[in-house]
Amino acid sequence: MGADQLREPHGGTIVNGTAGNSMPQGFQHPMGVEEFRKHGKEMVDFICDYHANHLQEAPVRSNVEVDYLRRCVPASAPEEGEDFNAVLTDVQRTVLPGVTHWQSPNFFAYFPANSSYPAMLGDMLSSAFNVIGFSWISSPACTELEAVVLDWLAKLLDLPPAFLTVGPDNTKGTGGGVIQGTASEATLVALLAARAQKLKGRDAADALKLVAYTSDQAHSCVMKACMIAGIQHVRVLPTSAQHDWALQSQVLQEALEQDEQQGLLPFFLCATAGTTSSCAIDSLELLGTLARQHSLWMHVDAAYAGVAAICPEHRQAHEGLHLAHSFATNAHKWLLTNFDCCCLWVADAEPLKAALSLTPVFLRAKGNALDYKDWQVPLGRRFRSLKLWFVLRCYGQRKLQEYIRHHIALATSFAARVRSHPAFEIMAPPRFGLVCFALKGQGNEVNKALLESLNQTGRVFLVGTELGGRFTLRMAIGSATTQAHHVEAAWQLICQHAEQMLANGQHSSIAN
Amino acid sequence: MGADQLREPHGGTIVNGTAGNSMPQGFQHPMGVEEFRKHGKEMVDFICDYHANHLQEAPVRSNVEVDYLRRCVPASAPEEGEDFNAVLTDVQRTVLPGVTHWQSPNFFAYFPANSSYPAMLGDMLSSAFNVIGFSWISSPACTELEAVVLDWLAKLLDLPPAFLTVGPDNTKGTGGGVIQGTASEATLVALLAARAQKLKGRDAADALKLVAYTSDQAHSCVMKACMIAGIQHVRVLPTSAQHDWALQSQVLQEALEQDEQQGLLPFFLCATAGTTSSCAIDSLELLGTLARQHSLWMHVDAAYAGVAAICPEHRQAHEGLHLAHSFATNAHKWLLTNFDCCCLWVADAEPLKAALSLTPVFLRAKGNALDYKDWQVPLGRRFRSLKLWFVLRCYGQRKLQEYIRHHIALATSFAARVRSHPAFEIMAPPRFGLVCFALKGQGNEVNKALLESLNQTGRVFLVGTELGGRFTLRMAIGSATTQAHHVEAAWQLICQHAEQMLANGQHSSIAN
Repeated sequence: MGADQLREPHGGTIVNGTAGNSMPQGFQHPMGVEEFRKHGKEMVDFICDYHANHLQEAPVRSNVEVDYLRRCVPASAPEEGEDFNAVLTDVQRTVLPGVTHWQSPNFFAYFPANSSYPAMLGDMLSSAFNVIGFSWISSPACTELEAVVLDWLAKLLDLPPAFLTVGPDNTKGTGGGVIQGTASEATLVALLAARAQKLKGRDAADALKLVAYTSDQAHSCVMKACMIAGIQHVRVLPTSAQHDWALQSQVLQEALEQDEQQGLLPFFLCATAGTTSSCAIDSLELLGTLARQHSLWMHVDAAYAGVAAICPEHRQAHEGLHLAHSFATNAHKWLLTNFDCCCLWVADAEPLKAALSLTPVFLRAKGNALDYKDWQVPLGRRFRSLKLWFVLRCYGQRKLQEYIRHHIALATSFAARVRSHPAFEIMAPPRFGLVCFALKGQGNEVNKALLESLNQTGRVFLVGTELGGRFTLRMAIGSATTQAHHVEAAWQLICQHAEQMLANGQHSSIAN
Repeated sequence: MGADQLREPHGGTIVNGTAGNSMPQGFQHPMGVEEFRKHGKEMVDFICDYHANHLQEAPVRSNVEVDYLRRCVPASAPEEGEDFNAVLTDVQRTVLPGVTHWQSPNFFAYFPANSSYPAMLGDMLSSAFNVIGFSWISSPACTELEAVVLDWLAKLLDLPPAFLTVGPDNTKGTGGGVIQGTASEATLVALLAARAQKLKGRDAADALKLVAYTSDQAHSCVMKACMIAGIQHVRVLPTSAQHDWALQSQVLQEALEQDEQQGLLPFFLCATAGTTSSCAIDSLELLGTLARQHSLWMHVDAAYAGVAAICPEHRQAHEGLHLAHSFATNAHKWLLTNFDCCCLWVADAEPLKAALSLTPVFLRAKGNALDYKDWQVPLGRRFRSLKLWFVLRCYGQRKLQEYIRHHIALATSFAARVRSHPAFEIMAPPRFGLVCFALKGQGNEVNKALLESLNQTGRVFLVGTELGGRFTLRMAIGSATTQAHHVEAAWQLICQHAEQMLANGQHSSIAN
């Protein structure tokens, strides 16, 4: 049977079941290794240009209109492959205008999403390996480096020893660290472990009695985790300016007692060490003691601020952390490690596995190995520890401390400027890199208008929040390249816009 | 107040609240833009060397022992930053031996996890932007390119028009596509949407009556999704060799009627188009009709095989897809797009948002924009559409079809070899790139021993499964660089090991 006879009209090849001795022809990729060598280096230059030049000029917050992109790209994929340079040209033409530049030194919105060159190099390697490290054997280095690097980071942050995979005495305990995609997933995973632990040996119907607790300042992911898990009772406990927006243990205690009296089953507390709105810090010592008394799993969401514990003088927020069952902080926020890299530690991994493990035969690992698939929602996972490893090694402890201190100093300095200006007031105690402020004696519409007026310049990007019903501007300082002169320029811009706004009295007509 | 007075013992800087006019000093990163230009290009060369040389020589499945890595790295992060070349040396020394090489042309385990150079370039760019695209405004291009590219892919796969964000008539419908991390997350998200839809307007206690359906060949992620969501009733319906391991609609119908009679609430069906074990294909037409009759949400998990629909002659598996509410396939398996890139489409996004949306004030988008955070479990998300866009453009439709046909031809040819060899038998109809086979007339221990003996050579990596109680070897052909001679060599190796094993009668003593 000749090769021609093996070929189908569609170009596919069929080999006859009995003949079957000839293999089909080869496939050639449009971009081979030498083309990648060339284009990969061009991409490195492109990225350098993006960082060194484009980021300095482009509006921080993109100013495109909804659906801008669809109007400038074809409605379908091309039939024939295109030249890579055509694609890169389109990145400049169509993508860049729609990018809100999180890496801009003038990005003060949300919380920072740091990238760094060592992290990017680690991520390139991760792309090249492209292993799916769900089980130990699927790529031992992927699992083992993750356990090692999370131990390294736990030590840098001075976390309780129970969170280490291999403790100070060089033996394996019951706990350990794992990289999750986001703090949302860390919270969900902790909540699922808590549920599994609480329902063990109980009736299925008891699931309807479970109660989760958090504060009205906690991240929305706590509520989302409850929605996902089908938790029927969530107590979003009130906080107040009087206590700097921290959850008071007395408030929790009253809620717990009330729920227990009604026959409900308290099982989970999400405490926050650095809330999204104002960076409020819940007392882990007081809440944790209460949680232990009432058999609650305490998860500590320190998504943004947790990494500050790399500096000994910024560890106050973690007092009482030994009472927590799990703790998460995002290396992808303020620790120079590209998204995604949320670091979650648990003191005991068994409830996690009880909640998440299913092991079909084709995925079974050999021996007593660590299978991270049982520590997370998805099965597949990327080799994410490489980028964190690269960061910890290239910076070292000293530079990382210097980095955190640099931003805190900038924020402290910014807060001092706000305080000393008669038109402004500080809306919550400045913590870490965050300063919450507003125009004094002005309503929410004026403060919203000020925010929008600033963002429209393209020279800075901030977002707002509400604290006790008052609209508040958030200055979140922590971009990897933010220096004093960027903060200084932002402050000048804020003053200038505020003064104009107050001077010409337009604020009553500027509604959002 | 002088600069000295502002400095704390720990090196932090405090600015006095009233003075506050001096900004702290600058921070310098250990790796600046010019160092990255240099090291980035070195990394490109490193990756080229990995692909062109290392992958050809290294054992496909890593042969390290558990805890190998901890023994060759320090117990803590360095105090001072290290030179990048020291890190790269350690990648070679400590990481590479522990990598199971998913990009090897001789990787036939699990299902493929394709990478490609265009995808890697797209991912480099995504790392450089490092935007967190949870809402439209947080980076409009991230959201809009994703919607466009998923429309492109939907058209390439000839998916039902309801799945498009912008339909053929150029208007927005109720559905659309979104990139999830993994098929596990896509299944979970679909299940949550189904639950939200079913429970709308019902008592909370009805949650305990919900029943999900799938087959015993479905991916374990269906069961995991049910565990996460707290679904009490899951029917894992039996399949058989007689029907090629596909879920029969009659089996589903009986289960549905039984459950309905008992007052339970059927709400979700996960059908599979290409199961993990044997690539079995459930009839979407029959199951979908039944699902509609009983008001079930039908999710179609086509994680591996779905992308084959890019070829018109491989679309049979999708007959009846218009009856599905959601459909997922992984571009990160067999479509040359680095992990993670699971493409999920829904015909109506409202139930998804009902299940997953929470919008605090500081995240509110302007206008009628698409906020993908409400389509997924986590809040944060990476700019993943770039890599898929790069792939679709650099390959074009024609090359992608040729690519899929290339692997299917290799698998067809391999299956013919198995069939024509008297010692082997085919264990399930070969589909797409997967061939399930075993030694004829030999027990599970012998087949397990054959598999382990092959993997120990380091020259191939396959995994096994069980079909109807029989241990089965899976030859999954689909690595991006696999050519005919790799498959040919694998077949020779398999024959050689099988013949040796059968000849020297050692099989009775080789237990797994």
